[in-house]
Amino acid sequence: MQHALGAELTRMRAATPLVHNITNYVSMEISANALLAVGAAPAMIHAEEEAAEFAAIAGALVINIGTLSPAWVAAMTASAVAANGAGVPWVLDPVAAGATGYRRRVCEGLLAFRPTLIRGNASEILALAGATASGRGVDAGDGVEAAEAAARSLAQETRGLVAVTGPVDFLTDGTEARRIANGAPILTQVTAMGCALSAVSGAFLAGAADRMDAATAALAAYALAGEQAAAVAAGPGSFAPAFLDALAALDAATLDAGARVSQA
Amino acid sequence: MQHALGAELTRMRAATPLVHNITNYVSMEISANALLAVGAAPAMIHAEEEAAEFAAIAGALVINIGTLSPAWVAAMTASAVAANGAGVPWVLDPVAAGATGYRRRVCEGLLAFRPTLIRGNASEILALAGATASGRGVDAGDGVEAAEAAARSLAQETRGLVAVTGPVDFLTDGTEARRIANGAPILTQVTAMGCALSAVSGAFLAGAADRMDAATAALAAYALAGEQAAAVAAGPGSFAPAFLDALAALDAATLDAGARVSQA
Amino acid sequence: MQHALGAELTRMRAATPLVHNITNYVSMEISANALLAVGAAPAMIHAEEEAAEFAAIAGALVINIGTLSPAWVAAMTASAVAANGAGVPWVLDPVAAGATGYRRRVCEGLLAFRPTLIRGNASEILALAGATASGRGVDAGDGVEAAEAAARSLAQETRGLVAVTGPVDFLTDGTEARRIANGAPILTQVTAMGCALSAVSGAFLAGAADRMDAATAALAAYALAGEQAAAVAAGPGSFAPAFLDALAALDAATLDAGARVSQA
Repeated sequence: MQHALGAELTRMRAATPLVHNITNYVSMEISANALLAVGAAPAMIHAEEEAAEFAAIAGALVINIGTLSPAWVAAMTASAVAANGAGVPWVLDPVAAGATGYRRRVCEGLLAFRPTLIRGNASEILALAGATASGRGVDAGDGVEAAEAAARSLAQETRGLVAVTGPVDFLTDGTEARRIANGAPILTQVTAMGCALSAVSGAFLAGAADRMDAATAALAAYALAGEQAAAVAAGPGSFAPAFLDALAALDAATLDAGARVSQA
Repeated sequence: MQHALGAELTRMRAATPLVHNITNYVSMEISANALLAVGAAPAMIHAEEEAAEFAAIAGALVINIGTLSPAWVAAMTASAVAANGAGVPWVLDPVAAGATGYRRRVCEGLLAFRPTLIRGNASEILALAGATASGRGVDAGDGVEAAEAAARSLAQETRGLVAVTGPVDFLTDGTEARRIANGAPILTQVTAMGCALSAVSGAFLAGAADRMDAATAALAAYALAGEQAAAVAAGPGSFAPAFLDALAALDAATLDAGARVSQA
Repeated sequence: MQHALGAELTRMRAATPLVHNITNYVSMEISANALLAVGAAPAMIHAEEEAAEFAAIAGALVINIGTLSPAWVAAMTASAVAANGAGVPWVLDPVAAGATGYRRRVCEGLLAFRPTLIRGNASEILALAGATASGRGVDAGDGVEAAEAAARSLAQETRGLVAVTGPVDFLTDGTEARRIANGAPILTQVTAMGCALSAVSGAFLAGAADRMDAATAALAAYALAGEQAAAVAAGPGSFAPAFLDALAALDAATLDAGARVSQA
């Protein structure tokens, strides 16, 4: 199977897309650094007074519900509307979607604006799809395969892409589906690595002609950098800087050679 | 003196406790990463709309007043009430407790909900106990020994544990007291290391049969990982990743062999 | 040309100034760690209930508009007033000043309180000065030299210092001007390095007899540590810890020997 993953990386870097993030406090620094490392330009803007204005001029919008508050939910909603109005792709990261009633209600509201891509772990995707999930919080209590049917139905409902990430990632547009078998277990021992992947996915989706290829390239590039960093890190502390180094050093040829993508 | 510190570490890791943090912005990432490294599962949730609901299902709650706002104080209060109602232990980190009138009032309010553990530096514990402290902000202007009497009286008042951390940590339940003589000076050159220790203490207190032993294990494990990291770090920048690596690699036998705990 | 840069570093470290930051979420941890590494004491306090009280007892105040909200703008304003009333120097970092109408209005309001130092990239300084700038967000779309005239006029208007940072930094008080030709390109691949420089500049300005020399020393020390870290880092991930290590290890003699300062 051949996808132009390296070409997607090259295209994204040439554009240096401005990625507007409304993301949780925990993930802001690592998300900004992952975006810079991969070759994009991050901005974190969340006030209702300016978020929608900014979303419309960004290359992509990323909404992450990790640390919610009513004022931020208002800004998320206005930004999603503005992004849709301006044709700007947007990513939803439904952190701990099923953990509280508030999160469930916020997610329902955001799904109505049809995210271009939803990226979550299995428990989050199951919670979004209305299924019973076992996740207690930000960690996945369910395996990726358990969420594949939910991901397909969610993608059909939103007419967007859905990615379930885990040991092997699953990406679908509701019809076609792919598996990306890169990555390393240590990625789960560092906070906000999933959040930062959502941000990086936004960078690849900005201006993409083929969104399925763009999202595949994002997932594969990120997980491949994770593999490379895991090979040199002594633990989760040294993994984080090694990961950013690997993401910055990754080139198109290495991505094409190292990506393990298959049709699902 | 023999405490089952390694056994506490093993017990905590087997449970992978979900630790709910309402903590300051500066410390969120390092707190989450320290919790992951030590073997727990972090969640940062602060909205009044969901914090109390989440606190009741967590293994422990950690409230840190570093970056306050009225909305967060409301969530802290509701979460402390919910934790108490559900029998969930909770930790108070009174960052810069005496620096402003607002901080003093917030601390007074939270103390009424009797934290399971209060962890602060000497100036913060003195300020909490109503004594005159010399701390200007987040740094301790007073030595640990100067705060021991205040710590004992605070522990009696709250019927909980109080830890004064510094070059040698002091832990008391108001009657018994212990000193933990691990650590390294460089811990004070990295921001939020005390905050992350409060978070890690929450992980050890979750489901603990003996809270004094659990808190002792948390303090000793953290400081021992600090010693190990200090031995390999070139400065405060390289210390932080080395510390997380050491915390993740620490095993029960090493903790038992390396901890320097004495009755006070 | 001879400035007492090393002497400024020594003076600042001897005072361990308390630096009050109202800064964006992305930059909080690296700003606090840069302040600790350089030898100052950071505090991040942003609630209107306490910010002004704290600003008046700090050695310096740093206001950074990266992640705005109405409550924070109120605290920024009250803190700037309190700092001025107490004779505390304050630094304005106008992140992405021209990106939205809200940012432009907030900056106009803050400029009225005459910051001791404004530090921004060329696009931000041009936006502040009312010129047409090409920055899309936090990155500079304009070269430093394009903003020199704007910086001089802004300094005259505020009767303070203005620093335009980039490959070669430009610092002016409206009359005299200097160039600082240290640094490394990788500084732009790590988020919030400009924000943390604003924080470090606050530390040098605290209690300074000669503010031009203090700001020059801050810019040169920071950029020189950047050069040293770039020489050993494998990428942007390993750069950040190496930078903090270098900042902590920098001594007065090395600063005097390595600084490349010229009259502009």
